[in-house]
Amino acid sequence: MTTGAPEGLLDALDAYEAALAANDLDALDAAFVDAPGTMRGDDRGLLVGHDAISAFRGARGGVQARSLTRVEVRPLADGLALVVSVSEFAAGGQGLQTQLWRRDGDTGTHTGSGTGTPPRWRIEAAHVTGRPKAFDTTVWRAVGDPLVAPTASGPLDGRTVAVKDLYAVPGQPIGAGNPTYLRESPVQAAPAAAVAALLDAGASIRGIARTDEFAYNLTGRNEHHGTPPNGAVPTRLPGGSSSGSASAVRLGMAEIGIGTDTAGSVRVPASYQGLWGLRTTHGAVSRQGLLPLAPSFDTVGWLTRSADVLLAALDASMPSVSATASASASASASASASDEPTELLVPAELVDLVEPAVAQTFAAFVAAQDAPIGPVRLADLGVPPLDDLRELLRLVQAAEAVTAHGAWIDAHPGALSAVVGDRFAAARANEPAATADAVARLDDVRATIRTALADRTLLFPTVPGPAPLIAADTTALERTRTATTAMTSLASVGGLPAVSAPALTVDGAPVGVCLVGGPGTDRALVIRAGRMLQP
Amino acid sequence: MTTGAPEGLLDALDAYEAALAANDLDALDAAFVDAPGTMRGDDRGLLVGHDAISAFRGARGGVQARSLTRVEVRPLADGLALVVSVSEFAAGGQGLQTQLWRRDGDTGTHTGSGTGTPPRWRIEAAHVTGRPKAFDTTVWRAVGDPLVAPTASGPLDGRTVAVKDLYAVPGQPIGAGNPTYLRESPVQAAPAAAVAALLDAGASIRGIARTDEFAYNLTGRNEHHGTPPNGAVPTRLPGGSSSGSASAVRLGMAEIGIGTDTAGSVRVPASYQGLWGLRTTHGAVSRQGLLPLAPSFDTVGWLTRSADVLLAALDASMPSVSATASASASASASASASDEPTELLVPAELVDLVEPAVAQTFAAFVAAQDAPIGPVRLADLGVPPLDDLRELLRLVQAAEAVTAHGAWIDAHPGALSAVVGDRFAAARANEPAATADAVARLDDVRATIRTALADRTLLFPTVPGPAPLIAADTTALERTRTATTAMTSLASVGGLPAVSAPALTVDGAPVGVCLVGGPGTDRALVIRAGRMLQP
Repeated sequence: MTTGAPEGLLDALDAYEAALAANDLDALDAAFVDAPGTMRGDDRGLLVGHDAISAFRGARGGVQARSLTRVEVRPLADGLALVVSVSEFAAGGQGLQTQLWRRDGDTGTHTGSGTGTPPRWRIEAAHVTGRPKAFDTTVWRAVGDPLVAPTASGPLDGRTVAVKDLYAVPGQPIGAGNPTYLRESPVQAAPAAAVAALLDAGASIRGIARTDEFAYNLTGRNEHHGTPPNGAVPTRLPGGSSSGSASAVRLGMAEIGIGTDTAGSVRVPASYQGLWGLRTTHGAVSRQGLLPLAPSFDTVGWLTRSADVLLAALDASMPSVSATASASASASASASASDEPTELLVPAELVDLVEPAVAQTFAAFVAAQDAPIGPVRLADLGVPPLDDLRELLRLVQAAEAVTAHGAWIDAHPGALSAVVGDRFAAARANEPAATADAVARLDDVRATIRTALADRTLLFPTVPGPAPLIAADTTALERTRTATTAMTSLASVGGLPAVSAPALTVDGAPVGVCLVGGPGTDRALVIRAGRMLQP
Repeated sequence: MTTGAPEGLLDALDAYEAALAANDLDALDAAFVDAPGTMRGDDRGLLVGHDAISAFRGARGGVQARSLTRVEVRPLADGLALVVSVSEFAAGGQGLQTQLWRRDGDTGTHTGSGTGTPPRWRIEAAHVTGRPKAFDTTVWRAVGDPLVAPTASGPLDGRTVAVKDLYAVPGQPIGAGNPTYLRESPVQAAPAAAVAALLDAGASIRGIARTDEFAYNLTGRNEHHGTPPNGAVPTRLPGGSSSGSASAVRLGMAEIGIGTDTAGSVRVPASYQGLWGLRTTHGAVSRQGLLPLAPSFDTVGWLTRSADVLLAALDASMPSVSATASASASASASASASDEPTELLVPAELVDLVEPAVAQTFAAFVAAQDAPIGPVRLADLGVPPLDDLRELLRLVQAAEAVTAHGAWIDAHPGALSAVVGDRFAAARANEPAATADAVARLDDVRATIRTALADRTLLFPTVPGPAPLIAADTTALERTRTATTAMTSLASVGGLPAVSAPALTVDGAPVGVCLVGGPGTDRALVIRAGRMLQP
């Protein structure tokens, strides 16, 4: 069916395949029409515009060795043709490419078609199906149908769970986001307590989801296993450290992502991917069977696509809370007065930390609420400055992380990635006196925050802005981390529950709103947030 | 970017999405240009021609609920436009569609554009990326990176294995292709012996691959879990019962598929998907930890993309054979004389059973070989007629399958699929006297075949023809099964090794050639077949 291909088109196709094989970025750039309407799409999403496509290529690396086994050419007009080709990969499996090719000079929008240059075919739109993969190893470490069956029948019957690779899963080792750690890790006989609670309520384990190394990062960029896709915006980072759990849920591969939240590791990916995310009250859900990062702040949390499923996971895991709560299991049901006794306040210091577009969108969201929402200054509640909380969190977290993993890291030089290795190195370099002071202050500061929020619920954007772009450099990401942990430190230092709800859209990307309340208000927060997001 | 869409196009797109949602096959048929050059492709391959696309739709079932969140329209000429759309699925995740739309009347090839009918937009080419899946549950039951780590370092370092869901895998139950069986199946502590051999040689388990129910089928069509793709030809069945192992290897998701071969369950999928497949000498590789179907015929076998990897799997699993064989681990290496002492013969009765196109292509393959290959009649070697062997295999296999699984089936009425349930019912209905006679004859017939092949190697097409089409009905498949088992029964009844090598292409689909030799010639067969296929 390739007879009748316009002159030069098959040569251009061959040259394009050669450029792919060589990962010749300049040639690949030149092979696409240099225009804002040029398109390239695959299973991670659609890129529109030559610049977006070029940036993607730079981050992707090359294409695996392949040859075209079938080429279908459909001339459409003079200088315009559709080419559909089947590729056979050297490592097995087939791919499919659909390309709309246009010859230079047939429109006036291209570069490189000056006089003297022969007309050239370029791609105006491409849709690519790559080599088949057993599964997305950036999202999962293992997955099954199910990977682990439920242990009983209950309210979570039929629900699937993506378990962050820090929890014990029977029949599997704990990987902690590091391949060296995984290789030495013993196979677990029993599930972690928080995993067992879900299995006992009828849920099955769909799989073990990737995490940032030892959960000590907020981006989702794992240098060993790659970066899971942000299911909401393909050009942005997924958020971490519960990265795989979040991506799996956002992509519809599981319904409940169980994660951990020390300094924001549930709230940040929830915000970045437009999910519901709950960090539970510190100590309210057992951490037995969970690899620690910083026990003073570590909490169990979940990521879901709806408030109802989040409530169901919570009720399965915190039966005492459920028993005292209203019988309704639905976030959309009208709650009894006891569910919502506290006043809802927007803390000025937290809103001050967000990007202008987020502040604007958040203000509109607040203004649209029926319930009265007042302003408050944290300082007026006796809460220390956020920079102080962030620093306290940073120092204590660092000391406890070194306690938890320092010996293993010493015994395995070079096993950590650069980013997390640097973070552990920095943790060890903290001034001992400053750390001791922070440790000594933690209980008092926690008590102060808890007193301030005893009868109040705070509402603010979860993080300063949408997820950073995949192409962001380490320096920019560290800046984002500092700004983010200033916001997340309130609940972390307070040991308080915090729900992130997918309320805002900024720059076409999701940003969550966060509700933080007193200890044990986990369920009330989810119900309240669910009602705020009712259409 | 949808401004400037030609009149009627977006309405046609909406109508098409509505037809997809309703799985309105007539409307979907009408939405595509009725021409032989119309194309539709996705991750399972490319279909060309309206008829092929229509047949695919009938077999697929509906599309999951989705809405279009972005639509990019590029008018290309009068009555011609490219539409690229992003879909958001209700269950999470995004898809991508690229469609070339053409308006009726702009070419003369369509139906439905008579006078009085308004011009209508139809799809001339479509490329679809569907909802993200955690993994292909038709191929795998569970998969990991790795699912089970190697237990030692050795010649299989870095190789990944797809384990048929009949073998014990530590940390997982055995599923046997039946969801009810899986739910009741205990988690295994240790790997099956044949799996342990691969792990001890350095291989890791990539995953547990789907099988036909209790391995009692040759098509790969599992009514519970769906049909794995044929990685060579997307419109055809994968073959079974080692279906998932074969598809996983053909698609490049694993390098070694471990299967079982009772009546052809390795040889058939190898032939259908263009793979190397080895059924080992009966009893030569331990079946400890393997769920039986019919122990008199059950053997361990492997599927690979190359003869070298097949040899490596064999050497890891049959050290006694390896130790006595030449030191060379390469099928392409020149073998010592002791590797190839036997004369190579084409048995007339087996070639008589294949489709004419296969016979013709096979004759050309034989003619192109350098080595002398003579004809032979099995009858002249004292081997009973193939119909007799097939019947003997059928009766003894049925009796042993009922012994192995009858009690479980009785205890679980309705748990089996129709096809395999009918096969077990038929097994129970066999005439006891005929079964007793077959059982009594087996040892003698086996001895007769082994004597006939003591110094001979037979060469013939593995199966009668290419894989049946996915759309084939049960009656046609049973006919194919009967013809196939007449061919596979020689090695099964003889308890002999048989290698299927990807040598032939018929109708654009692969067909294997099979070498059968005396007991213990497994390694020599692979080396000999490897040399025959050298380019």
